[in-house]
Amino acid sequence: MAPQSRTLDHPDRSEIRLEDVLHALSDPVRLQVVRFLADGGESSCSAIDLAVSKSTTTHHFRVLREAGVIRQVYRGTAKMSSLRREDLDALFPGLLDTVVTAYDAQQARTVTV
Amino acid sequence: MAPQSRTLDHPDRSEIRLEDVLHALSDPVRLQVVRFLADGGESSCSAIDLAVSKSTTTHHFRVLREAGVIRQVYRGTAKMSSLRREDLDALFPGLLDTVVTAYDAQQARTVTV
Repeated sequence: MAPQSRTLDHPDRSEIRLEDVLHALSDPVRLQVVRFLADGGESSCSAIDLAVSKSTTTHHFRVLREAGVIRQVYRGTAKMSSLRREDLDALFPGLLDTVVTAYDAQQARTVTV
Repeated sequence: MAPQSRTLDHPDRSEIRLEDVLHALSDPVRLQVVRFLADGGESSCSAIDLAVSKSTTTHHFRVLREAGVIRQVYRGTAKMSSLRREDLDALFPGLLDTVVTAYDAQQARTVTV
């Protein structure tokens, strides 16, 4: 496999658009991914317990990556994902934390109903 | 015209979902509407200078209403819109202000480039 095929496209910080980030966050599965990654560190796609197929998982991670919400890198044979917290916090202060907090609050309300 | 045709459907507060709100906000025109309404008060659709057709404007306002972001009521022949700030702040504290601030920051960056 050629080296260039092992590098994934990411928008530069200056290319990240608020509307794209909000769109990437506007899906329950992608919110679940962001919530998981918000606790820090890198994770493989398979480490997150998502109730969707592998191809759907790959799609959701790609949407997050192309919007600039996550960074994905290859470590050996594993594709590892992490939040672009530094970029997002610089561009849209507080947005990531506010969304994660809102997601947690919604989850808590859903469970108690 | 029958009275019931003059009332528009809105989700109850308990029906408002974070993913729907984020989707409603994930569009430049709808962000512009929310930014305008965030300064307070009610506004007619035509009071906001949007670079889209009347039917597209109506569509965008409907998306915002159905997601629970805005409330629309008839005042005589005018359809007036306002943010559902109390509901959104109760469900997702800080989200609306964070998004509006992020939008302003992005607009400022775009203008200076």
